[in-house]
Amino acid sequence: MGSEEFRAGMRKLAGGVTIVTSIDQDGRRCGLTATAVCSLSTDPPSLVACVNRASSVAAVVEASGVFAVNVLAHEQQAVAEVFAGRAGLAREDRFAAGDWQHGAGGAPVLAGTCVSFECALAEVKEFGTHLILIGRVTKTHVTPEDDSPLIYGNGAFLTTTSAPQAAA
Amino acid sequence: MGSEEFRAGMRKLAGGVTIVTSIDQDGRRCGLTATAVCSLSTDPPSLVACVNRASSVAAVVEASGVFAVNVLAHEQQAVAEVFAGRAGLAREDRFAAGDWQHGAGGAPVLAGTCVSFECALAEVKEFGTHLILIGRVTKTHVTPEDDSPLIYGNGAFLTTTSAPQAAA
Repeated sequence: MGSEEFRAGMRKLAGGVTIVTSIDQDGRRCGLTATAVCSLSTDPPSLVACVNRASSVAAVVEASGVFAVNVLAHEQQAVAEVFAGRAGLAREDRFAAGDWQHGAGGAPVLAGTCVSFECALAEVKEFGTHLILIGRVTKTHVTPEDDSPLIYGNGAFLTTTSAPQAAA
Repeated sequence: MGSEEFRAGMRKLAGGVTIVTSIDQDGRRCGLTATAVCSLSTDPPSLVACVNRASSVAAVVEASGVFAVNVLAHEQQAVAEVFAGRAGLAREDRFAAGDWQHGAGGAPVLAGTCVSFECALAEVKEFGTHLILIGRVTKTHVTPEDDSPLIYGNGAFLTTTSAPQAAA
């Protein structure tokens, strides 16, 4: 099966939009927009994030052992676009978009997200062009109000509404 | 960090709803509803699905080496509920819900999805209570029309609408 066919299929797997961040030993931040993030286990609390091996985030996370997954609210589309590289900004300059704080573990945490998870890198699994980062969640930042998530699917940013009742 | 806090946070990571299926050597089908699925690499075309080690699907996939990920359209909520175990149906009986076919690799493929991926199990990584199934995608079934995906987030089934324009 060709990669074009695969890409066309994957456009149809909608998912929440996140920004995966880390910080290097000199205190320089990096981050990228990712939808390839999912829950793993509740015991221990853990998640999976898949990032390209060639990305700066992959290298920094492997060195620092910490990362954060910031799950964006629907009004944070502009921040998603910056960290997807659309504005052509260099690593540190991207953080001018959004209200960023240093998390307890050092990785940048964005205010106003639906939820942000700080993680300690538990294991890394290499596959093809990508790394599977397995993060043990060390801290969860949940926004008190029920904010609608930002979703990416069919090549567009989307938000959610209640599903119609299923047919019997 | 406690598992309650983690669970509350994970409710906020919205994602597309899938049914992960497989078939055992006696031709018996199994499947479960999962949101912990994401794209991995385009080279080779691959994806990740995280399933509980105690599930029948985990055991069957490890033995058969094949599985399918069926990405549900918003009108397939009733099928999602059956495969989430809400109807209390046994393994094979669940397949009365929805229009199922045998995929080229054997694993059950649901008609009318946004997309269904047939996978050969490339690697398995155990972590905590779960398995990370790494699937090399062998066949993609894409629905021609642009159907809205079924999303699960904040403990509810949702569907998508266009996101409002982001603030400048």
